[in-house]
Amino acid sequence: MTLVVGVDIGGTKTAAGLVDESGALLAVRTAPTPAARGPEAVLGTAADLVRGLVADTPGGRGAAAVGVGSAGVVDARRGTVVSATGTIARWAGTDLRGELSRRLGLPVAVDNDVHAHALGEQWRGAAAGHRDVLLVAVGTGVGASVVLGGRVRHGAHSVAGHAGHLPVPAAAGRPCTCGGSGHVETVAAGPALLAEYRRRTAAGDGTGRTGAGAPGGIPDSGPGSGPDSGPGGVRGGTPDGTPGGVAHLAGVAGLAADGDPVASAVLAEGAAALGEAVGGLMNVIDPEVVVVGGGVAGCGPAWWDALRAAVREQTLPALRDVPVVPAALGGDAALLGAARLALALEVTG
Amino acid sequence: MTLVVGVDIGGTKTAAGLVDESGALLAVRTAPTPAARGPEAVLGTAADLVRGLVADTPGGRGAAAVGVGSAGVVDARRGTVVSATGTIARWAGTDLRGELSRRLGLPVAVDNDVHAHALGEQWRGAAAGHRDVLLVAVGTGVGASVVLGGRVRHGAHSVAGHAGHLPVPAAAGRPCTCGGSGHVETVAAGPALLAEYRRRTAAGDGTGRTGAGAPGGIPDSGPGSGPDSGPGGVRGGTPDGTPGGVAHLAGVAGLAADGDPVASAVLAEGAAALGEAVGGLMNVIDPEVVVVGGGVAGCGPAWWDALRAAVREQTLPALRDVPVVPAALGGDAALLGAARLALALEVTG
Repeated sequence: MTLVVGVDIGGTKTAAGLVDESGALLAVRTAPTPAARGPEAVLGTAADLVRGLVADTPGGRGAAAVGVGSAGVVDARRGTVVSATGTIARWAGTDLRGELSRRLGLPVAVDNDVHAHALGEQWRGAAAGHRDVLLVAVGTGVGASVVLGGRVRHGAHSVAGHAGHLPVPAAAGRPCTCGGSGHVETVAAGPALLAEYRRRTAAGDGTGRTGAGAPGGIPDSGPGSGPDSGPGGVRGGTPDGTPGGVAHLAGVAGLAADGDPVASAVLAEGAAALGEAVGGLMNVIDPEVVVVGGGVAGCGPAWWDALRAAVREQTLPALRDVPVVPAALGGDAALLGAARLALALEVTG
Repeated sequence: MTLVVGVDIGGTKTAAGLVDESGALLAVRTAPTPAARGPEAVLGTAADLVRGLVADTPGGRGAAAVGVGSAGVVDARRGTVVSATGTIARWAGTDLRGELSRRLGLPVAVDNDVHAHALGEQWRGAAAGHRDVLLVAVGTGVGASVVLGGRVRHGAHSVAGHAGHLPVPAAAGRPCTCGGSGHVETVAAGPALLAEYRRRTAAGDGTGRTGAGAPGGIPDSGPGSGPDSGPGGVRGGTPDGTPGGVAHLAGVAGLAADGDPVASAVLAEGAAALGEAVGGLMNVIDPEVVVVGGGVAGCGPAWWDALRAAVREQTLPALRDVPVVPAALGGDAALLGAARLALALEVTG
């Protein structure tokens, strides 16, 4: 059975996994991404992880190919990083495929991490069995990937999928990291939700529940980040000392789960804005299924209920029954999607 | 050289054209669509037009196949009308391909008229030479077609392309024909523009220019109508007797061309709302070119300037230079696109 390695290069962490043809993840290695040290260091870290996995393959038979999902806008055809918004220093312009292939002596396929996430979910996750999939990743940013006929839609300039830059009324006038304004990312991404909760509670609510409800487990790195995610993540906030302040979005989610009306409202409003954008987009894309992942999708039922209600309000009658489901593979999705890219290389020669 | 017939079935008019492999339109016949009399009458009219063209082919050699672009949501794979919003009585459920093929004894391919419009522009019009095209048609409704790799994207439920049902801030809260609200069609389609102009001038402006500026030439039928277009078109309004009232959107366009500030503002605001939706969509689709057609696209430079400015404000830096151009084939686009469908039948057997 053919073995390949999938690599997920995020701004915080790099993970590599040994995967077989069936999509079974046989071994995983991770390391912090030396993002501040630039491409040489990041490529070196990725190559080391791959070498370690390959050296440990059963019978030492090695891997046939490597697939990479990376932060930033990636030209999958040329194998290069087109642009990256500061997640990894000097990442734009990196010949990701060429450099890794040279270091490893193996064929390499590369793509953006959100696209890899989508391929993973479509192969072995929440969208398995579907050919036309809209994957939305909500973390430090809002990203998406459109899979049509089983293939990722990259677009003429490799920027297809930037659903965080759809306009919604709730975001009207808000400046966006892209230079535009009014985009859904400015109200629905993790940092926006956290900032809004802090703003509403800045006058103090006297409950003394500050941060106390913060459960673990809402990651800020990996495929949940949109392709445009700026610095600072779902967990990127720090206690700001204001009454009612919480350190992480997970804290807001915890408060909402306990019935806190402000936390519930903030999550519901952010989810509704996202649902409005996603529902509108569904009217144009007409997917079989919508998969929603990323750290913010772990915010609980209040968030999901509001998302689904808004989607339903926006969509045409023919689309009212399209499933809107959580991503199923968690942090492994991009790894598996990257492995899928590697297997495709193997198949097509 | 292979000859085919392309047919464009709109709510008002049915047109058929004899087309050769190169896309040359050799002959055209038209007739009013007997929309109120239902499918039998409509199919009969279309079949008669095709027979007339075929009988007159050079040397009587006939046509190899027929392609049809029709109002309504069409299942191109099955050849049936999925739904239609009253444009043609009892049109939903019609076995368009089977019935026409039976009547004519020829292979028939069918699609929605906006998709046919897009294929026509991509074959011989404003998008010639491009494989990834976003066509937007703005008439009595707002429709779109996404062509990827030279093929129309139909979607899992045949409703892909309903860009009129994207949310924009300017439409927030406005009820839409689809049952939702806040969709761009409610502020950017022809009837919305005309209604808004009338509303703003209802108090009377004393200029006595009522309707006088209406130039000819903004059609309301054909591919410019969105797939959801309801009754009443760009020309569907009638003088309502209010001061400043105009009969047609063309009248508003004429006033804008003469420098009328209210008319100019109404057109610019509608175009800006459309541009906001289109720009956001471009961030997800990432097309090579955007083609805008339909009657409203004939409203002049004030409309186009506002559209392009809004698109530019919304789009990611990588997309700022994507051309946004007028459709080039006018009323022939859907005919030619339908002919293209017929030729594809011929090629694939």
